[in-house]
Amino acid sequence: MTDLARPSGPTTTVAACQLRIDIDDPEGNRRRVVTAVDDAVARGAGLVVLPELVTSGYVFADLAEARERSEPVDGPTVTLLTELSARHGIVLVAGFCERSDGERPFNSLAVLDSGRLLAVYRKTHLWGTEKAVFAVGDALAPVVETRVGVVAAMICYDLEFPEMVRDVALRGAQIVVAPSNWPSNSPPPGERAPEVVKAQASAAVNRVFVVVTDRVGTERGVVWIGGSVICDVEGYPVAGPAQGEETTLLAELDLGRALAKDVGPYNHAFTDRRPDLY
Amino acid sequence: MTDLARPSGPTTTVAACQLRIDIDDPEGNRRRVVTAVDDAVARGAGLVVLPELVTSGYVFADLAEARERSEPVDGPTVTLLTELSARHGIVLVAGFCERSDGERPFNSLAVLDSGRLLAVYRKTHLWGTEKAVFAVGDALAPVVETRVGVVAAMICYDLEFPEMVRDVALRGAQIVVAPSNWPSNSPPPGERAPEVVKAQASAAVNRVFVVVTDRVGTERGVVWIGGSVICDVEGYPVAGPAQGEETTLLAELDLGRALAKDVGPYNHAFTDRRPDLY
Repeated sequence: MTDLARPSGPTTTVAACQLRIDIDDPEGNRRRVVTAVDDAVARGAGLVVLPELVTSGYVFADLAEARERSEPVDGPTVTLLTELSARHGIVLVAGFCERSDGERPFNSLAVLDSGRLLAVYRKTHLWGTEKAVFAVGDALAPVVETRVGVVAAMICYDLEFPEMVRDVALRGAQIVVAPSNWPSNSPPPGERAPEVVKAQASAAVNRVFVVVTDRVGTERGVVWIGGSVICDVEGYPVAGPAQGEETTLLAELDLGRALAKDVGPYNHAFTDRRPDLY
Repeated sequence: MTDLARPSGPTTTVAACQLRIDIDDPEGNRRRVVTAVDDAVARGAGLVVLPELVTSGYVFADLAEARERSEPVDGPTVTLLTELSARHGIVLVAGFCERSDGERPFNSLAVLDSGRLLAVYRKTHLWGTEKAVFAVGDALAPVVETRVGVVAAMICYDLEFPEMVRDVALRGAQIVVAPSNWPSNSPPPGERAPEVVKAQASAAVNRVFVVVTDRVGTERGVVWIGGSVICDVEGYPVAGPAQGEETTLLAELDLGRALAKDVGPYNHAFTDRRPDLY
C-alpha cells in the first residue's frame, strides 16, 4: 500500500440499492426498483447498481417456473431499466431472468447508460441449484465505456473467481459491479462473510473499485446476507458492508484512481505479474 | 460456504514464528531461530514457518551488502535449518538470502522435512527496492509432499497475486506457507491490512490453508506490520492476525480438509472455474 497522491478528478456517486425482493410479486419488485433508483438519483447517484434477478426473484420452484418468469431483453424489466436510465441520464446495472432459445433461461444482467443498452451479460459461474434452472453463459463479463468511466459487470458467484476480476481489470475496468444474491452463512464472531473478503481482495489486487449489491428478505426459506459493499482501490469498504437491512449504500468515488496501477514508487499491480510463468 | 461435514483426520500443529530480526546481528538471528523452533516443537508443532530473510535481515544498504550477506544453499542458514528439521523430525520453511552465480543474490526460501532439503524457491514477485538488490526467480512456487501433507511455499508479495495461489492449489497444495516481511501501512480504523485480507481470500477461493509468518522490529527505519496469520480453508483466521509483537502463532489443522474442494452440495472451487473462457 502507499500514501502516494493519486490522480484526482471529478467524482461519481455510486449507489448500491439493496432491496427486498418478492418472488411472488414481480410488479411490486418493479415498483421497488423505480423507487430505489429515483431515490438514489435524488441523492446524487450517477451509477446505480441493483441486485441479481431483481424483478423476478431467485428461488424458483423449478425450471418451469423459471421459464415462465423469464423475459426477453425487450421485456418489461430491461424496458423499465432503459426508461429509468434515460430519464435520469445515469448508468444502471441490474440482474434479470433472460429468456433463451433453449430449454433454460439465463441469469443475466443489463448495463444501461442514459437509455442505451450497452451490454447483456449471462452469468458464467452458476451457484447451487441455479444449475438446475439456468443455462450457463459462454462469454466473459462485459467491460464498457460509460459516461462515468469504464464499467465491468458480473453476477454474484462470478466475483469469487479471481480470474474474472483480473480479466476485466486487465481490459481496463475502473469499477466492477456485481448484482448479487448472497445466501447467508455463519462467519465466526467478528468476521465478515467470505464473499465480502473476496470482494475486498479483488479490489485491492487489481486496484479497481468493486460494488456488490446484495438483496434482503427471506425467500422460500432462503435467507440472504444483505451484505452489499462498495470497496475502494485499496480494498477497504467505503460503504457497507450492509447488515441485512433494506438500504442504499452511497459512495462518492474518483474513478480516475483506478487508472493508476502503481503500488508505491516501485511496484505495479499489473506489470509485476509474471504471465511468463503462470 | 457450507456447514457440510468435512473429512476429518489426523491433525497437524502449525506454527508461525514471528520474530524480531536484526540485520546487523546474523548470529543472533540464528540463535533466535533455534529458540523459536525449539519452542514451537515443544508446543507440538510439526510444521514451522519462519519469516522471509530470517537470518540476514531485509533492509540492505545496497547491492554490495546484500551480496556480502548472501549464502550458498550449503551455507550456515540452510545447514542450521536442516539440523533443526532433522533433530525434531519436522517440516520447516524459512527465507534466506541465497548467493547466485550472477551479480545479485536471490530472495529465497528453503523447505525441509526431517533433515531433507525438499525445495529451494526464489521469489518471483519482488517488492519495492528489492528490485535493486535481488535477482528475480524464474520458476513458480514449489509444491512438495511432506510428512504432514502437500506444502506449497512462496514469499511475501508473491502471495498477493491470485495466480500464484491458484497455481499451487491446482497442483495439489493443502497448505500454502509464506515467509514474509510486511512493511507497515495504515488501514482505516477497524480494517485489517490488505495483505491479511488477500491471504484470507486466497485461502477461501482455493480452499487451502494459508500461513503467513511476518516479522517485527524496526530495521533501518522500516517498520513491519507483525501481522502473521493462519487461515483455514474458509478464509477465516484461526490464529492471528498478530498485532506487531514477537510471538508464535499455533493452530491445530486437519490438512485433509484442503483435499475437499466442494463448496456446499452443488459447487466446487476448481471445477466451477471456466478455463474455457479465461
